[in-house]
This record gives sequence, structure tokens and C-alpha cells, in this order.
Amino acid sequence: MRRGLFVGRFQPPHLGHKELIEYILTQVDEVVIVIAAAQVSHNIKNPLTGGQRLELMRIMLSNSNIESSKYWLIQIPDIFDNGLWVSHLKRFIPKVDVAFGNNPFTTMLFQDAGLETKNTPLIKRDLFESRQIREKIRNGDNVEDLLDRDVNKLLKEWKIAERLKAVSSSDSAKFGDANSNFR
Amino acid sequence: MRRGLFVGRFQPPHLGHKELIEYILTQVDEVVIVIAAAQVSHNIKNPLTGGQRLELMRIMLSNSNIESSKYWLIQIPDIFDNGLWVSHLKRFIPKVDVAFGNNPFTTMLFQDAGLETKNTPLIKRDLFESRQIREKIRNGDNVEDLLDRDVNKLLKEWKIAERLKAVSSSDSAKFGDANSNFR
Amino acid sequence: MRRGLFVGRFQPPHLGHKELIEYILTQVDEVVIVIAAAQVSHNIKNPLTGGQRLELMRIMLSNSNIESSKYWLIQIPDIFDNGLWVSHLKRFIPKVDVAFGNNPFTTMLFQDAGLETKNTPLIKRDLFESRQIREKIRNGDNVEDLLDRDVNKLLKEWKIAERLKAVSSSDSAKFGDANSNFR
Amino acid sequence: MRRGLFVGRFQPPHLGHKELIEYILTQVDEVVIVIAAAQVSHNIKNPLTGGQRLELMRIMLSNSNIESSKYWLIQIPDIFDNGLWVSHLKRFIPKVDVAFGNNPFTTMLFQDAGLETKNTPLIKRDLFESRQIREKIRNGDNVEDLLDRDVNKLLKEWKIAERLKAVSSSDSAKFGDANSNFR
Amino acid sequence: MRRGLFVGRFQPPHLGHKELIEYILTQVDEVVIVIAAAQVSHNIKNPLTGGQRLELMRIMLSNSNIESSKYWLIQIPDIFDNGLWVSHLKRFIPKVDVAFGNNPFTTMLFQDAGLETKNTPLIKRDLFESRQIREKIRNGDNVEDLLDRDVNKLLKEWKIAERLKAVSSSDSAKFGDANSNFR
Amino acid sequence: MRRGLFVGRFQPPHLGHKELIEYILTQVDEVVIVIAAAQVSHNIKNPLTGGQRLELMRIMLSNSNIESSKYWLIQIPDIFDNGLWVSHLKRFIPKVDVAFGNNPFTTMLFQDAGLETKNTPLIKRDLFESRQIREKIRNGDNVEDLLDRDVNKLLKEWKIAERLKAVSSSDSAKFGDANSNFR
Repeated sequence: MRRGLFVGRFQPPHLGHKELIEYILTQVDEVVIVIAAAQVSHNIKNPLTGGQRLELMRIMLSNSNIESSKYWLIQIPDIFDNGLWVSHLKRFIPKVDVAFGNNPFTTMLFQDAGLETKNTPLIKRDLFESRQIREKIRNGDNVEDLLDRDVNKLLKEWKIAERLKAVSSSDSAKFGDANSNFR
Repeated sequence: MRRGLFVGRFQPPHLGHKELIEYILTQVDEVVIVIAAAQVSHNIKNPLTGGQRLELMRIMLSNSNIESSKYWLIQIPDIFDNGLWVSHLKRFIPKVDVAFGNNPFTTMLFQDAGLETKNTPLIKRDLFESRQIREKIRNGDNVEDLLDRDVNKLLKEWKIAERLKAVSSSDSAKFGDANSNFR
Repeated sequence: MRRGLFVGRFQPPHLGHKELIEYILTQVDEVVIVIAAAQVSHNIKNPLTGGQRLELMRIMLSNSNIESSKYWLIQIPDIFDNGLWVSHLKRFIPKVDVAFGNNPFTTMLFQDAGLETKNTPLIKRDLFESRQIREKIRNGDNVEDLLDRDVNKLLKEWKIAERLKAVSSSDSAKFGDANSNFR
Repeated sequence: MRRGLFVGRFQPPHLGHKELIEYILTQVDEVVIVIAAAQVSHNIKNPLTGGQRLELMRIMLSNSNIESSKYWLIQIPDIFDNGLWVSHLKRFIPKVDVAFGNNPFTTMLFQDAGLETKNTPLIKRDLFESRQIREKIRNGDNVEDLLDRDVNKLLKEWKIAERLKAVSSSDSAKFGDANSNFR
Repeated sequence: MRRGLFVGRFQPPHLGHKELIEYILTQVDEVVIVIAAAQVSHNIKNPLTGGQRLELMRIMLSNSNIESSKYWLIQIPDIFDNGLWVSHLKRFIPKVDVAFGNNPFTTMLFQDAGLETKNTPLIKRDLFESRQIREKIRNGDNVEDLLDRDVNKLLKEWKIAERLKAVSSSDSAKFGDANSNFR
Repeated sequence: MRRGLFVGRFQPPHLGHKELIEYILTQVDEVVIVIAAAQVSHNIKNPLTGGQRLELMRIMLSNSNIESSKYWLIQIPDIFDNGLWVSHLKRFIPKVDVAFGNNPFTTMLFQDAGLETKNTPLIKRDLFESRQIREKIRNGDNVEDLLDRDVNKLLKEWKIAERLKAVSSSDSAKFGDANSNFR
């Protein structure tokens, strides 16, 4: 039995993620899906809370034909410390055999920690670019081909377009920037 | 559809927890099981990592007859701040309707946050006391009636009895306490 | 113009504090009252939030004859680091000339930081002992001679006796300590 | 009795803030003025410590005709966590009924937390822009129309123009950036 | 070339530590001496700052016949997280081959991280017990046989006996414990 | 006996640093070399861990003619808090008389803390610019005139050019930025 690791921020989970998970399950028996930076939310790159991303991912996977015993859905908080990040991650997950992904940085971190890594095919990369998807959601553009139907419904119910608009405004100083983002 | 919340440290998950989860599922449609203090491990009250507790809970529940769509298994890190704890928790979970448990402290925190709370029956409380179960494991006593068979097997494979012995020793000053626990 | 510093946790503010502040104002022109460990609450030594202690102190002082221009009411969060504590404190307060108090530990910290310190008279010390006052509140004993009338009223309105009971219970393991305090 | 909340970084407090506070006091009975990011200082957006901002705000308000019983001056430290920020804030303040401000981001955070929000009129917004005021102070430009007279005096006494120059330089790598800002 | 690791809090460094370091250097070519919990000070188990412990250790070793090229003196801050502690430690030190010490807890942590461990002989263990040495210093007892001569001189110059007395008092509630240690 | 302080991130230590240390030792008897932001690594401005920088600095200084008793090599972690930074630093170092450096920001922080400061000559500033040296290492350019021979050898052995390439990539969103840097 071999387990693969798949780490992402999933802001939001989209159909590209689903395809990747299906691909990974052709390579290994189980996939550990890690929702990274779980405590980070309400900013422009991370509008959704960890709990919201978990719920969206769960509904997208349950709408797919992937058996629930084949995947693990795990949130991990960010510790804002690159040098400890892999050790930190390992405490939240079951033992894995290989980490999937194409980012040279995380690949290096995993390899330094002695973990096997594997690239994944880039599935319609132009289409499934999270930053663009967030912008489309904010602008009210059609994202039906990019997101699971129920994911889309929940994003609307939770008024995520409105949240994206609000967080986009946080840097623009208003009156005496007294009320701007407090950093 | 109503969702219940069930929070514990699960050091380790035992059959009393399983019975409680079964009871909760007679009261609500889904249960959100939260593994609290997920980043805390390797001390006398918390020998297991969050990932290990997750794995043990998953195997115990998969050995039961509870449908996987009925429960959520979620780790949350401790923030060591009682006054923020419920707000922190809420970011990691889907919306819940009622929190189950008998501890007056957490009941108060949930009620202050406007969440409905419900007591649970105390199932063989003398038997299923986590502190005693940890002591039994450390001493190599028989815990077969208290733990799921596969949970027991994994605790042995992971040498948790040895870890419990080691963490028990950390306060006893050795040579000039130079090598004692570094707090 | 000379300013004195008076630091306390004020769990809760009581009439002994009021007398001390009045005494300090016979020694200096202004007193900077610091509510320490402001973010710490909901535990047995610290039931009240910083905001609640501020509100209680403000009402007690406004019920006294002390002019509001004579005192500063300032919350500071704890940083759990004795070696940095005075430097941390200084960032939240105006310049002070002397720190009042009888605790050898804080006196040492202030002196190490080059701040003048002064002992205060021990006003009815047996009576005004915060730990005992908290116990009396929890037990519903009469504390009318110890607390300002409006302080007492607010503690009742906020159900602090109940909170003290709940936090007292947090160590007592309930069912499998699954629901005990998550530390 | 109704209480309004007014949150700002107040780097530095200026006459626009004073006018806003006066406006808010036409809408509610008391205003809770929160000095946010109180522990953040010595950087380009936040030159002043929390204690300095408190002192400046207190002197500006005492120079106005606003009664001291009508306002609360409270520092809160930043926790660098948008999703917990409102819960964190609430621990430091008395109960408030409505939050004033025009920033869509904080408005959203307050509304998500169930707090009523109200926009404020933009008083001479071009004039009272904190970033510009900081730049004017740094350059030694005339800010007499923008700042309270005593605020201005204290900023000079504390050599804030010099501090602003120094923090502006922290990114410019000097010799081998060995001595640059240590982030 | 083989390097050994020797970790301690060194509150304070004593002649037992010196003997241990000499012993380790009969086993390996270089020893990496780690001053743990470097940021922790001013409490009863940890009176000295990291910098003070470093200075004392350096003077004790320079008074010995150990060549300075044979040892490394490194402070590491505590992160209060047992599960990450070894990974954290490794970032501050050069590569080591074996960790020396007799504490079962740290031995377990090192072994879990794949590091070889070795017990050390217990040199006059009854004599060189740090807690007792701290008590003797506090009480003004003779510690000349336990400490390097220059270490002893610096502890007096720094008034560590007085500091130990002051930190011992921090739990004893004074007036309404308003001035006790602010935890 | 006078001690000087020299603080840097040393990413990496280069021959300009060596010359500066030699210069400082013409002004004072001992130099305390502080490796700042010791826990920060694996990012584009800070590729090396604190332990690696310590090792490189030690080898460079041992290759020079500077006596080891003349310098102290000390790592300090960053606390990301400008207002506390000098107080934090002081806990890790022996008493110093003067801080060397040309950065107006740190000069201000040291002066505010009452420490004497001194500018250093800018030794071949165009040559010894750390950012450029990191870029040269990443590109495989010749840095033999800039780095100690053994420093250069270790950087190659540790594959720092590869690490610099990997951390440079962390912002470039890959597939749905699922695997990008998790901030």
C-alpha cells in the first residue's frame, strides 16, 4: 500500500484539483490531501477559512466517483517558518511515501526532508489558475466550467464574491487610513 | 439536517469515544469530531501527535458500522488562549448546530459564543478514563476491552508505551538537569 | 509633574486597589494604572477579560473622588517572557518616574530596567486578597465591603460566579477527558 | 445609552480624527476609541508606539471640548490574523452597539461578527490622509493645520521626523546589507 | 572527524558540565554545546539569560585546557513544542554525529529524529545537581567546589543570589496579588 | 577592555565582513558578532539557516589571522517586533560598549536604547553587496574574490545555488498555485 501527499491552499478547490487527485490515485493507493495555511483567511490570496475549504473539497470529492476510503482531508495551520515547515506538516498526517507537485520550492523542502517527490502533469494549466479563478469570482464572471456545481453554489451562499471585493479594498487608505487593514 | 460537534484530545481514541459518537448520531444527522490541541504531542497528557490520533480515530470508525458520510474528522491546533478558543475552532469546521459534552468549562465557552450545548450520557465512565488508559498502556496492562483492536495494534507498532515511559521521565532531573526537558 | 506606575492583574478591581491609587496620588501627580495580562481570561486566576477589568476599574474610579485627568487606565497583553516584560510594558504607557508595589520580583525587573521603585503601605492586606475575593464571589459570599457597589453589580450581571465555577472544573476530567480543557 | 466603536492606527492622531469623534458623539452617547496594532512601531507605516499614540490622542481630546466620560481610549495589540481579529478586539473593550468607519474590509469583518456598522462622513479627506501627514512630518513641512498644537509639540520633542527618516532607510541595503532591517 | 552534541540549560554552568565536556571530547573530535531555552530567564528554574550563560560557559572553558577549536557554543531559543524541537535545534547547529546525555525523554526525541545517542557517565551526580546549586547560591552557601572561580565571581557581580530570591517570591501573593508575577 | 557589537544577517558571510571585523578590532578589544534572524531560512533574502551561517563565519574567521578569543559568534532569532528588538538582542550577548554599523535604522534603535554607535568605513561597497553575491551564486558566476575559499566550498557542498533557484520560484504560481509557497 502506497500513500501520496498532495498539498495546496485550495483557494478555492476547483476541477483541476479534482483531476489531479484522480491522476494521483492512478499512481498510489491513497492520497493525503493537505489544506495548507488553514488558519489564514480573509485576505486577497486566501479569502476562505480552512473549514470552508474543507467543506468545499469534501463536497467536490463526494460528487466525484472517488471512494472516500482512498483519500484523507487534513487541514494544517501555517507556522510561517520555511525551515520547519515539513517537520510541522508531518505531525498532522499519516505516513506518506511520495509527495506530488510541480513547485520547485516545496519539492526542495520535501527532498531535503528525505521524502520522495514526483511531478504531476499540468492539466489545462491556463484554465485552472487559482488567482484567475478568484478574480472571476470577484467580478461575477462565469466559473461553471472551473468549479464543481455544489462548490459554486456554496461560494454564492457564503457571499465570497463580496468578501473578495472587501479584502481587495483593505490596502486602499480611506479617511486617514484609520480604518484600513491594521497591519 | 442537523450537525453536532464533539471535541476531544483523544489521547488515545478509545471505545468510549466510539459509543459516544454512535450516541450523538442518534441525536443529529452528522457529527463533526474535532481533535483538539492537534500540534501538542510528546508530553505526559498528550503522547500522540495529531496525525496519529487522526489515523487511530479513522481506523476505529472504519471498523465500526458508522457511515463515513456521517462524520467529519478535523484537527485543530491549540492557541493557548481560552478567550479566543471558540472563535478559533469555528474557522476549521463546517457550521454546527449543537455541541455535545459534559465539561462545564467548554460548555460555558460554547454558550458564551451563542452555541447550543447538550450533555451526553456517561458511558461506563470508570472504565473509559483517558488518563488511566494511558497509564495502562505505559505499564503494559491489558487494554483490549478499552481500545479498538487496530488502534491497539498501531499503538504497539508506534511504541507508544515506550514514549509514555520516556515523557514520564522528563521532569526527573538527571545529571545537573542539563538534559531534562528544556522548559 | 511626576508620574507613578501601578501594575496589577485586577481580577477583579477591589476597594483595596482604590485606596492604593488614592495613596499613590498623595505621592505623585498622575498615576498610570496598568491592567496586566490583558488578553488572559477564562481561567481560575484570571476569570475576567481585559475589557471587563477596564470597565470595572473605570466605574470604580468614577465613583471615587479621583479626577479623571489624574489617572491613565491602560491594558497590556502578557508576552510570557520575563526578560522582555518591562521593555514591552514601556511601549504601551507614557513616561513614568517611579513604579509602586511590594512584590520583590517586579521590583527587581523595574530596577534592572533603571526605573525607580517605591513600596506601598499594605492596606488591610488580610481583607483585600484577590484570590480570596475570587473564591468568595464563586461561593456567593458577601463581598459588599470589598468591592465597589457598581463593580459588584456588573460582576453579577456578567455571571462571573458561574464563570468561576466553570473554570474551576476544567481540570477535573469528565468522560475520558475528551471534553476537558484542551491544553 | 448607545456606544459606538471607532478603530484606527492613529499614526499619528490628527484633527480629522478629532472631527470624526465629535461627529460620532452626535450619533451615540459614548465612543470607544481603539488604537489598533498597539505593539507595532518603528516602521514606515507605524512610526509611533501605542503608548505614544495614546498620549497624543489623550492630549488632543483634552484640548477639545469633549467630556472625558464620553470616550474610552483603548490600545489593542495586533494578532496578525484577520479571521480572529474581531473576537480578539472584543476582549479589550466594553460592549458596543455600532462600529463607525468607511473601510469595506473592516466593515465586512464587523458585519460577519454580527455587529451593526455605520459609515462616517469623509471630512476633508484630501487633507487628512495619514500617509501624507507622515511624509510631511518627515520632510519638516508645515502640519499646523492638520495636527493639534500639543500633538505637534510632542512629535517634535520625541524627534519623530528623525525616526521617520531612519525607518525609511531600513530597506536600502547598506554595506552588504549586514546592518539592514533584520527581516 | 566526528562531532558530538551536548544540550543543557546550564543554569548555571558548573564543574560537572566541564568534566562531561572533557569526557565527550575523549569520544569525539568536536563537541557542539547547546545552551537551550536561551530566551528564558528570570524565573526560578532559569534565573540567567542566555547571554549570561554563554559568557559563564566561555570563561569556564577558557579556564580549562580545552582547545577552543574543539567546541562550539550555541544558544537556541525554546519553541515550547516537543514535536518540533529536534528539527528546530538542527537549524542552529553544524551537522553532528551523536548526541550525548542520560535523559530518556531527549534521548527518545533524538532517536525518533534518526540521531545516534550515547549515555554519559554520571560524574559525582549528587554533587552536581543544578537545582541544588541554585539553592545554594540563593542561600549564600559555599559553591566554590562546584563552580569555576570566574563563574562564581561573575554570579556575584551580577547579583544572581538576589535575583534568585526575587524570582522565588513571585508566586507569593502580596497585596491583592496585584503586583505578583503577571501570568 | 572595550567590546564592540557587529550585527548582520550574513547571507552569506563574505570577505567584506571579514575586513569589517578586522577594522572593528582596531577600534575595540573584542567584537561580538551577531547572526541576526537566525531562525529564518529558505527564502530569497535568507537562503541559509543560522547554523550554516555560523559554520561559514567560523571557518572564515579561523582562516583569518584573528585570534578566537577576540570575537564572539552568537545567533539570535528574529522576534519581528522593531520596538523590542534591542532589548531582545541584549539577552543573548555579553555587555557591549559600542555598536558598529552604517544603517540609520539600527543606529536609531541602538541610540534609543542608550547604546553608543559608530559608523564603519564602507569597504569596496560595490563589490560586497550581499544581494548581488546571492544572485551570482544562484547563476553560477565566479565569486572567488568575494568569499573565503572554504565558505565557497561549503556553499557548493550544501547545493546553495540550487536552493536559491528553488526559493526564487516560490512566488511563481504553478498549477492553480496549489503547490506554491504556503503563505
